[in-house]
Amino acid sequence: MEDKGISRAVIKRLPRYYRYLGELLEDHVERISSGELSERMKVTASQIRQDLNNFGGFGQQGYGYNVAYLHDEIGKILGLNRNHNMIIVGAGHLGQALANYGSFARSGFKTVALFDVKPELAGKTVQNIEVHMIDELPEYLHTHHVEIVALTLPKSEAVAVADVLVANGVRAIWNFAHTDLNLTLPHNVIVENVHLSESLMRLSYNLTRQEEQK
Amino acid sequence: MEDKGISRAVIKRLPRYYRYLGELLEDHVERISSGELSERMKVTASQIRQDLNNFGGFGQQGYGYNVAYLHDEIGKILGLNRNHNMIIVGAGHLGQALANYGSFARSGFKTVALFDVKPELAGKTVQNIEVHMIDELPEYLHTHHVEIVALTLPKSEAVAVADVLVANGVRAIWNFAHTDLNLTLPHNVIVENVHLSESLMRLSYNLTRQEEQK
Repeated sequence: MEDKGISRAVIKRLPRYYRYLGELLEDHVERISSGELSERMKVTASQIRQDLNNFGGFGQQGYGYNVAYLHDEIGKILGLNRNHNMIIVGAGHLGQALANYGSFARSGFKTVALFDVKPELAGKTVQNIEVHMIDELPEYLHTHHVEIVALTLPKSEAVAVADVLVANGVRAIWNFAHTDLNLTLPHNVIVENVHLSESLMRLSYNLTRQEEQK
Repeated sequence: MEDKGISRAVIKRLPRYYRYLGELLEDHVERISSGELSERMKVTASQIRQDLNNFGGFGQQGYGYNVAYLHDEIGKILGLNRNHNMIIVGAGHLGQALANYGSFARSGFKTVALFDVKPELAGKTVQNIEVHMIDELPEYLHTHHVEIVALTLPKSEAVAVADVLVANGVRAIWNFAHTDLNLTLPHNVIVENVHLSESLMRLSYNLTRQEEQK
Protein backbone atom coordinates (compact mmCIF):
# COMPACT_ATOMS: atom_id res chain seq x y z
CA MET A 1 0.00 0.00 0.00
CA GLU A 2 2.01 2.88 -1.30
CA ASP A 3 -0.57 5.67 -1.66
CA LYS A 4 2.12 8.07 -2.82
CA GLY A 5 2.80 8.63 0.88
CA ILE A 6 -0.71 9.93 1.59
CA SER A 7 -2.29 8.66 4.79
CA ARG A 8 -5.53 6.71 4.94
CA ALA A 9 -7.15 9.46 6.99
CA VAL A 10 -6.43 12.05 4.32
CA ILE A 11 -7.70 9.72 1.60
CA LYS A 12 -10.97 9.35 3.49
CA ARG A 13 -11.43 13.12 3.46
CA LEU A 14 -10.61 13.55 -0.23
CA PRO A 15 -14.12 13.06 -1.68
CA ARG A 16 -15.35 15.93 0.48
CA TYR A 17 -12.54 18.25 -0.66
CA TYR A 18 -13.28 17.19 -4.21
CA ARG A 19 -16.92 18.15 -3.79
CA TYR A 20 -16.18 21.59 -2.31
CA LEU A 21 -13.54 22.33 -4.94
CA GLY A 22 -16.06 21.31 -7.61
CA GLU A 23 -18.57 23.78 -6.21
CA LEU A 24 -15.95 26.53 -6.25
CA LEU A 25 -15.18 25.70 -9.88
CA GLU A 26 -18.88 25.96 -10.73
CA ASP A 27 -18.86 29.38 -9.08
CA HIS A 28 -15.83 30.35 -11.23
CA VAL A 29 -13.56 30.74 -8.21
CA GLU A 30 -9.94 30.41 -9.38
CA ARG A 31 -8.06 30.59 -6.11
CA ILE A 32 -8.99 30.10 -2.49
CA SER A 33 -7.05 30.50 0.74
CA SER A 34 -7.04 27.80 3.41
CA GLY A 35 -8.87 30.31 5.64
CA GLU A 36 -11.75 30.78 3.20
CA LEU A 37 -12.01 27.05 2.54
CA SER A 38 -11.94 26.46 6.31
CA GLU A 39 -14.89 28.83 6.68
CA ARG A 40 -16.89 26.95 4.02
CA MET A 41 -16.06 23.42 5.12
CA LYS A 42 -15.98 23.98 8.88
CA VAL A 43 -12.59 22.30 9.13
CA THR A 44 -9.63 24.13 10.67
CA ALA A 45 -7.38 25.98 8.25
CA SER A 46 -4.39 24.10 9.61
CA GLN A 47 -6.04 20.75 8.86
CA ILE A 48 -6.75 21.93 5.33
CA ARG A 49 -3.15 23.09 4.84
CA GLN A 50 -1.80 19.78 6.12
CA ASP A 51 -4.17 17.75 3.94
CA LEU A 52 -3.84 19.71 0.72
CA ASN A 53 -0.09 20.21 0.91
CA ASN A 54 0.07 16.52 -0.04
CA PHE A 55 -0.97 17.52 -3.55
CA GLY A 56 0.96 20.68 -4.28
CA GLY A 57 -0.94 23.35 -6.14
CA PHE A 58 -0.44 25.89 -3.36
CA GLY A 59 1.24 29.14 -4.09
CA GLN A 60 2.92 31.80 -2.06
CA GLN A 61 1.45 33.06 1.17
CA GLY A 62 -1.57 35.18 0.33
CA TYR A 63 -1.97 33.56 -3.08
CA GLY A 64 -4.14 30.65 -2.05
CA TYR A 65 -4.81 27.31 -3.71
CA ASN A 66 -5.33 26.94 -7.44
CA VAL A 67 -8.86 25.47 -7.41
CA ALA A 68 -8.83 23.82 -10.84
CA TYR A 69 -5.39 22.29 -10.31
CA LEU A 70 -6.24 20.85 -6.90
CA HIS A 71 -9.63 19.57 -8.12
CA ASP A 72 -7.83 17.78 -10.96
CA GLU A 73 -5.11 16.30 -8.77
CA ILE A 74 -7.56 14.99 -6.21
CA GLY A 75 -9.76 13.64 -9.01
CA LYS A 76 -6.77 11.68 -10.36
CA ILE A 77 -6.01 10.18 -6.94
CA LEU A 78 -9.66 9.12 -6.68
CA GLY A 79 -9.55 7.57 -10.16
CA LEU A 80 -12.05 10.09 -11.56
CA ASN A 81 -9.87 11.02 -14.54
CA ARG A 82 -11.27 8.12 -16.54
CA ASN A 83 -14.60 6.32 -16.98
CA HIS A 84 -15.70 3.27 -15.01
CA ASN A 85 -18.37 1.01 -16.44
CA MET A 86 -20.89 0.00 -13.79
CA ILE A 87 -23.81 -2.42 -13.75
CA ILE A 88 -26.61 -2.36 -11.20
CA VAL A 89 -27.85 -5.72 -9.95
CA GLY A 90 -31.30 -5.22 -8.47
CA ALA A 91 -33.57 -2.98 -10.55
CA GLY A 92 -36.00 -2.10 -7.75
CA HIS A 93 -36.49 1.45 -6.53
CA LEU A 94 -32.99 1.77 -5.13
CA GLY A 95 -31.34 0.35 -8.24
CA GLN A 96 -33.42 2.66 -10.42
CA ALA A 97 -32.59 5.60 -8.17
CA LEU A 98 -28.87 4.92 -8.70
CA ALA A 99 -29.39 4.60 -12.47
CA ASN A 100 -31.13 7.98 -12.45
CA TYR A 101 -28.37 9.86 -10.60
CA GLY A 102 -26.89 12.11 -13.27
CA SER A 103 -24.01 13.08 -11.00
CA PHE A 104 -22.48 9.59 -11.03
CA ALA A 105 -22.27 9.63 -14.83
CA ARG A 106 -20.75 13.11 -14.70
CA SER A 107 -18.05 11.75 -12.38
CA GLY A 108 -17.29 9.00 -14.91
CA PHE A 109 -19.36 6.17 -13.42
CA LYS A 110 -21.33 4.99 -16.41
CA THR A 111 -24.20 2.58 -15.80
CA VAL A 112 -24.24 0.21 -18.77
CA ALA A 113 -26.88 -2.32 -17.68
CA LEU A 114 -29.30 -3.27 -14.93
CA PHE A 115 -30.15 -6.81 -13.85
CA ASP A 116 -33.09 -8.22 -11.94
CA VAL A 117 -34.85 -11.50 -11.22
CA LYS A 118 -38.37 -10.27 -11.97
CA PRO A 119 -39.48 -11.42 -15.45
CA GLU A 120 -41.80 -8.42 -15.78
CA LEU A 121 -38.76 -6.12 -15.81
CA ALA A 122 -37.03 -7.94 -18.70
CA GLY A 123 -36.30 -5.60 -21.59
CA LYS A 124 -37.55 -2.49 -19.78
CA THR A 125 -35.26 0.50 -19.75
CA VAL A 126 -34.28 3.03 -17.10
CA GLN A 127 -32.68 6.16 -18.55
CA ASN A 128 -32.29 4.19 -21.78
CA ILE A 129 -30.37 1.48 -19.93
CA GLU A 130 -31.76 -1.99 -20.45
CA VAL A 131 -32.83 -4.32 -17.65
CA HIS A 132 -31.51 -7.85 -18.18
CA MET A 133 -32.43 -11.04 -16.36
CA ILE A 134 -30.01 -12.12 -13.67
CA ASP A 135 -29.28 -15.49 -15.32
CA GLU A 136 -27.66 -13.52 -18.17
CA LEU A 137 -25.06 -12.10 -15.76
CA PRO A 138 -22.16 -14.54 -16.39
CA GLU A 139 -22.49 -14.21 -20.16
CA TYR A 140 -22.73 -10.42 -19.88
CA LEU A 141 -19.67 -10.17 -17.64
CA HIS A 142 -17.60 -12.20 -20.09
CA THR A 143 -18.57 -10.14 -23.11
CA HIS A 144 -18.56 -6.63 -21.62
CA HIS A 145 -16.07 -4.55 -19.71
CA VAL A 146 -17.58 -4.04 -16.25
CA GLU A 147 -15.50 -2.58 -13.43
CA ILE A 148 -18.02 -1.89 -10.69
CA VAL A 149 -21.20 -3.70 -9.66
CA ALA A 150 -23.76 -1.87 -7.53
CA LEU A 151 -25.62 -4.56 -5.59
CA THR A 152 -29.11 -3.39 -4.66
CA LEU A 153 -30.75 -6.69 -3.80
CA PRO A 154 -32.20 -7.84 -0.48
CA LYS A 155 -29.70 -9.50 1.84
CA SER A 156 -31.30 -12.91 1.24
CA GLU A 157 -30.25 -12.80 -2.43
CA ALA A 158 -27.16 -10.59 -2.24
CA VAL A 159 -24.72 -13.13 -0.80
CA ALA A 160 -25.35 -15.77 -3.50
CA VAL A 161 -25.29 -13.18 -6.30
CA ALA A 162 -22.02 -11.74 -4.98
CA ASP A 163 -20.46 -15.19 -5.30
CA VAL A 164 -21.62 -15.39 -8.92
CA LEU A 165 -20.19 -11.92 -9.61
CA VAL A 166 -16.81 -12.80 -8.13
CA ALA A 167 -16.71 -16.18 -9.90
CA ASN A 168 -17.16 -14.26 -13.14
CA GLY A 169 -14.34 -11.81 -12.57
CA VAL A 170 -15.92 -8.87 -10.74
CA ARG A 171 -13.41 -7.17 -8.45
CA ALA A 172 -15.37 -4.21 -7.05
CA ILE A 173 -18.81 -4.30 -5.42
CA TRP A 174 -20.78 -1.32 -4.14
CA ASN A 175 -22.99 -3.17 -1.68
CA PHE A 176 -26.34 -1.85 -0.41
CA ALA A 177 -27.53 -5.15 1.09
CA HIS A 178 -27.72 -5.25 4.86
CA THR A 179 -24.73 -7.54 5.30
CA ASP A 180 -20.93 -7.12 5.33
CA LEU A 181 -20.08 -8.76 2.02
CA ASN A 182 -16.38 -8.08 2.43
CA LEU A 183 -16.25 -10.70 5.20
CA THR A 184 -17.41 -13.53 2.93
CA LEU A 185 -15.61 -12.64 -0.31
CA PRO A 186 -11.94 -13.11 -1.26
CA HIS A 187 -9.59 -10.40 0.02
CA ASN A 188 -8.77 -9.07 -3.43
CA VAL A 189 -12.41 -8.10 -4.03
CA ILE A 190 -13.04 -4.46 -3.12
CA VAL A 191 -16.31 -3.98 -1.27
CA GLU A 192 -17.76 -0.64 -0.25
CA ASN A 193 -20.74 -1.27 2.05
CA VAL A 194 -23.52 1.32 2.31
CA HIS A 195 -25.55 0.43 5.39
CA LEU A 196 -28.47 2.86 5.36
CA SER A 197 -30.07 1.50 8.51
CA GLU A 198 -26.86 2.09 10.48
CA SER A 199 -26.94 5.71 9.37
CA LEU A 200 -30.57 5.96 10.53
CA MET A 201 -29.59 4.45 13.90
CA ARG A 202 -26.88 7.08 14.40
CA LEU A 203 -29.53 9.73 13.77
CA SER A 204 -31.84 8.05 16.26
CA TYR A 205 -29.02 7.85 18.82
CA ASN A 206 -28.37 11.59 18.53
CA LEU A 207 -32.08 12.36 18.76
CA THR A 208 -32.43 10.21 21.88
CA ARG A 209 -29.41 11.83 23.51
CA GLN A 210 -30.76 15.31 22.75
CA GLU A 211 -34.12 14.43 24.32
CA GLU A 212 -32.43 13.10 27.45
CA GLN A 213 -30.61 16.40 27.88
CA LYS A 214 -33.78 18.46 27.84
CA MET B 1 -22.52 15.31 26.20
CA GLU B 2 -22.85 12.71 28.87
CA ASP B 3 -23.35 9.47 26.92
CA LYS B 4 -23.42 7.47 30.15
CA GLY B 5 -19.63 7.51 29.92
CA ILE B 6 -19.56 5.72 26.54
CA SER B 7 -17.08 7.10 24.04
CA ARG B 8 -18.02 8.44 20.64
CA ALA B 9 -15.93 5.74 18.94
CA VAL B 10 -17.89 2.98 20.68
CA ILE B 11 -21.19 4.66 19.81
CA LYS B 12 -20.19 4.69 16.15
CA ARG B 13 -19.65 0.93 16.24
CA LEU B 14 -22.95 0.15 18.04
CA PRO B 15 -25.22 -0.20 14.99
CA ARG B 16 -22.93 -2.91 13.65
CA TYR B 17 -22.98 -4.82 16.95
CA TYR B 18 -26.74 -4.41 17.00
CA ARG B 19 -26.99 -5.93 13.54
CA TYR B 20 -24.82 -8.94 14.34
CA LEU B 21 -26.59 -9.56 17.64
CA GLY B 22 -29.92 -9.37 15.77
CA GLU B 23 -28.71 -12.03 13.34
CA LEU B 24 -27.68 -14.26 16.25
CA LEU B 25 -31.13 -13.81 17.79
CA GLU B 26 -32.73 -14.83 14.50
CA ASP B 27 -30.56 -17.93 14.57
CA HIS B 28 -31.76 -18.64 18.15
CA VAL B 29 -28.27 -18.22 19.62
CA GLU B 30 -28.62 -17.40 23.34
CA ARG B 31 -25.01 -16.79 24.34
CA ILE B 32 -21.85 -15.98 22.44
CA SER B 33 -18.25 -15.60 23.55
CA SER B 34 -16.16 -12.63 22.50
CA GLY B 35 -14.01 -15.10 20.56
CA GLU B 36 -16.92 -16.38 18.46
CA LEU B 37 -18.25 -12.87 17.87
CA SER B 38 -14.74 -11.80 16.90
CA GLU B 39 -14.65 -14.57 14.30
CA ARG B 40 -17.97 -13.44 12.80
CA MET B 41 -17.36 -9.71 12.83
CA LYS B 42 -13.63 -9.74 12.04
CA VAL B 43 -12.91 -7.47 14.97
CA THR B 44 -10.44 -8.50 17.67
CA ALA B 45 -11.93 -10.25 20.71
CA SER B 46 -10.27 -7.69 22.97
CA GLN B 47 -11.93 -4.81 21.10
CA ILE B 48 -15.28 -6.58 21.49
CA ARG B 49 -14.73 -7.12 25.22
CA GLN B 50 -13.76 -3.48 25.71
CA ASP B 51 -16.73 -2.22 23.71
CA LEU B 52 -19.40 -4.51 25.14
CA ASN B 53 -18.28 -4.30 28.74
CA ASN B 54 -19.78 -0.81 28.63
CA PHE B 55 -23.21 -2.43 28.67
CA GLY B 56 -22.92 -5.25 31.14
CA GLY B 57 -24.68 -8.45 30.18
CA PHE B 58 -21.45 -10.42 30.26
CA GLY B 59 -21.20 -13.39 32.53
CA GLN B 60 -18.40 -15.43 33.99
CA GLN B 61 -15.43 -16.50 31.92
CA GLY B 62 -16.57 -19.24 29.56
CA TYR B 63 -20.20 -18.17 29.81
CA GLY B 64 -20.24 -15.59 27.06
CA TYR B 65 -22.55 -12.70 26.38
CA ASN B 66 -26.30 -12.94 26.78
CA VAL B 67 -27.33 -12.13 23.20
CA ALA B 68 -30.91 -10.98 23.88
CA TYR B 69 -29.86 -8.80 26.81
CA LEU B 70 -27.05 -7.09 24.92
CA HIS B 71 -29.22 -6.60 21.84
CA ASP B 72 -31.83 -4.93 24.03
CA GLU B 73 -29.37 -2.71 25.88
CA ILE B 74 -27.71 -1.51 22.69
CA GLY B 75 -31.13 -0.97 21.13
CA LYS B 76 -32.07 1.29 24.04
CA ILE B 77 -28.89 3.35 23.70
CA LEU B 78 -29.67 3.76 19.99
CA GLY B 79 -33.23 4.82 20.77
CA LEU B 80 -34.71 1.74 19.10
CA ASN B 81 -36.88 0.80 22.06
CA ARG B 82 -39.63 3.10 20.83
CA ASN B 83 -41.13 4.21 17.53
CA HIS B 84 -40.04 7.25 15.55
CA ASN B 85 -42.41 8.79 13.03
CA MET B 86 -40.64 9.70 9.81
CA ILE B 87 -41.69 11.54 6.67
CA ILE B 88 -39.88 11.35 3.36
CA VAL B 89 -39.56 14.58 1.39
CA GLY B 90 -38.84 13.68 -2.22
CA ALA B 91 -40.95 10.82 -3.57
CA GLY B 92 -38.69 9.92 -6.49
CA HIS B 93 -37.02 6.53 -6.78
CA LEU B 94 -34.80 7.03 -3.74
CA GLY B 95 -37.66 8.26 -1.56
CA GLN B 96 -39.82 5.36 -2.68
CA ALA B 97 -36.96 2.94 -2.06
CA LEU B 98 -36.74 4.19 1.54
CA ALA B 99 -40.52 3.90 1.95
CA ASN B 100 -40.30 0.30 0.73
CA TYR B 101 -37.57 -0.79 3.17
CA GLY B 102 -39.40 -3.07 5.57
CA SER B 103 -36.40 -3.23 7.89
CA PHE B 104 -36.70 0.44 8.88
CA ALA B 105 -40.26 -0.07 10.06
CA ARG B 106 -39.21 -3.19 11.96
CA SER B 107 -36.59 -1.07 13.77
CA GLY B 108 -39.32 1.40 14.77
CA PHE B 109 -38.85 3.99 12.03
CA LYS B 110 -42.38 4.40 10.74
CA THR B 111 -42.86 6.34 7.51
CA VAL B 112 -46.14 8.23 7.90
CA ALA B 113 -46.14 10.37 4.74
CA LEU B 114 -44.22 11.26 1.60
CA PHE B 115 -44.01 14.71 0.02
CA ASP B 116 -43.09 15.84 -3.46
CA VAL B 117 -43.38 18.82 -5.79
CA LYS B 118 -44.68 16.88 -8.79
CA PRO B 119 -48.47 17.35 -9.14
CA GLU B 120 -48.79 13.95 -10.87
CA LEU B 121 -47.73 12.25 -7.63
CA ALA B 122 -50.43 13.94 -5.49
CA GLY B 123 -52.61 11.39 -3.74
CA LYS B 124 -50.61 8.39 -4.96
CA THR B 125 -49.54 5.89 -2.38
CA VAL B 126 -46.33 3.95 -1.77
CA GLN B 127 -46.81 0.97 0.55
CA ASN B 128 -50.15 2.51 1.50
CA ILE B 129 -48.42 5.76 2.50
CA GLU B 130 -49.84 8.84 0.82
CA VAL B 131 -47.81 11.30 -1.24
CA HIS B 132 -48.66 14.90 -0.32
CA MET B 133 -47.67 18.07 -2.09
CA ILE B 134 -44.73 19.93 -0.61
CA ASP B 135 -46.72 23.11 0.06
CA GLU B 136 -48.73 21.11 2.59
CA LEU B 137 -45.59 20.50 4.67
CA PRO B 138 -45.94 23.30 7.27
CA GLU B 139 -49.58 22.41 7.97
CA TYR B 140 -48.70 18.70 8.18
CA LEU B 141 -45.81 19.30 10.57
CA HIS B 142 -48.05 21.33 12.88
CA THR B 143 -50.80 18.72 13.01
CA HIS B 144 -48.75 15.49 13.13
CA HIS B 145 -45.99 14.18 15.33
CA VAL B 146 -42.94 13.89 13.07
CA GLU B 147 -39.51 13.21 14.52
CA ILE B 148 -37.33 12.46 11.51
CA VAL B 149 -37.40 13.81 7.96
CA ALA B 150 -35.64 11.88 5.22
CA LEU B 151 -34.68 14.43 2.57
CA THR B 152 -34.36 12.80 -0.84
CA LEU B 153 -34.49 15.86 -3.07
CA PRO B 154 -31.85 17.16 -5.47
CA LYS B 155 -29.34 19.54 -3.90
CA SER B 156 -30.88 22.50 -5.74
CA GLU B 157 -34.12 22.08 -3.78
CA ALA B 158 -32.86 20.51 -0.56
CA VAL B 159 -31.37 23.61 1.05
CA ALA B 160 -34.56 25.68 0.78
CA VAL B 161 -36.77 22.79 1.90
CA ALA B 162 -34.50 22.13 4.90
CA ASP B 163 -35.05 25.75 5.98
CA VAL B 164 -38.84 25.24 5.78
CA LEU B 165 -38.56 22.02 7.80
CA VAL B 166 -36.52 23.67 10.54
CA ALA B 167 -38.78 26.74 10.62
CA ASN B 168 -41.65 24.35 11.28
CA GLY B 169 -40.04 22.54 14.16
CA VAL B 170 -38.13 19.64 12.58
CA ARG B 171 -35.06 18.74 14.64
CA ALA B 172 -33.65 15.68 12.82
CA ILE B 173 -32.90 15.39 9.10
CA TRP B 174 -31.60 12.33 7.28
CA ASN B 175 -30.08 14.06 4.29
CA PHE B 176 -29.41 12.37 0.95
CA ALA B 177 -28.82 15.59 -1.01
CA HIS B 178 -25.27 16.15 -2.19
CA THR B 179 -24.56 18.97 0.25
CA ASP B 180 -23.58 19.24 3.93
CA LEU B 181 -26.85 20.54 5.37
CA ASN B 182 -25.48 20.58 8.91
CA LEU B 183 -23.25 23.52 7.97
CA THR B 184 -26.17 25.78 7.07
CA LEU B 185 -28.73 24.78 9.72
CA PRO B 186 -28.87 25.76 13.42
CA HIS B 187 -26.63 23.72 15.71
CA ASN B 188 -29.53 22.08 17.55
CA VAL B 189 -30.76 20.41 14.34
CA ILE B 190 -29.41 16.88 14.01
CA VAL B 191 -28.29 16.09 10.47
CA GLU B 192 -27.07 12.72 9.27
CA ASN B 193 -25.67 13.12 5.76
CA VAL B 194 -25.60 10.14 3.38
CA HIS B 195 -23.27 11.06 0.54
CA LEU B 196 -23.55 8.19 -1.93
CA SER B 197 -21.14 9.67 -4.44
CA GLU B 198 -18.42 9.92 -1.80
CA SER B 199 -18.87 6.23 -1.10
CA LEU B 200 -18.56 5.50 -4.83
CA MET B 201 -15.37 7.61 -4.96
CA ARG B 202 -13.80 5.59 -2.15
CA LEU B 203 -14.55 2.46 -4.16
CA SER B 204 -12.99 4.03 -7.24
CA TYR B 205 -9.93 5.08 -5.21
CA ASN B 206 -9.39 1.50 -4.01
CA LEU B 207 -9.90 0.14 -7.52
CA THR B 208 -7.36 2.59 -8.93
CA ARG B 209 -4.82 1.76 -6.26
CA GLN B 210 -5.24 -1.97 -6.87
CA GLU B 211 -4.68 -1.50 -10.60
CA GLU B 212 -1.54 0.52 -9.96
CA GLN B 213 -0.14 -2.31 -7.90
CA LYS B 214 -0.55 -4.88 -10.66
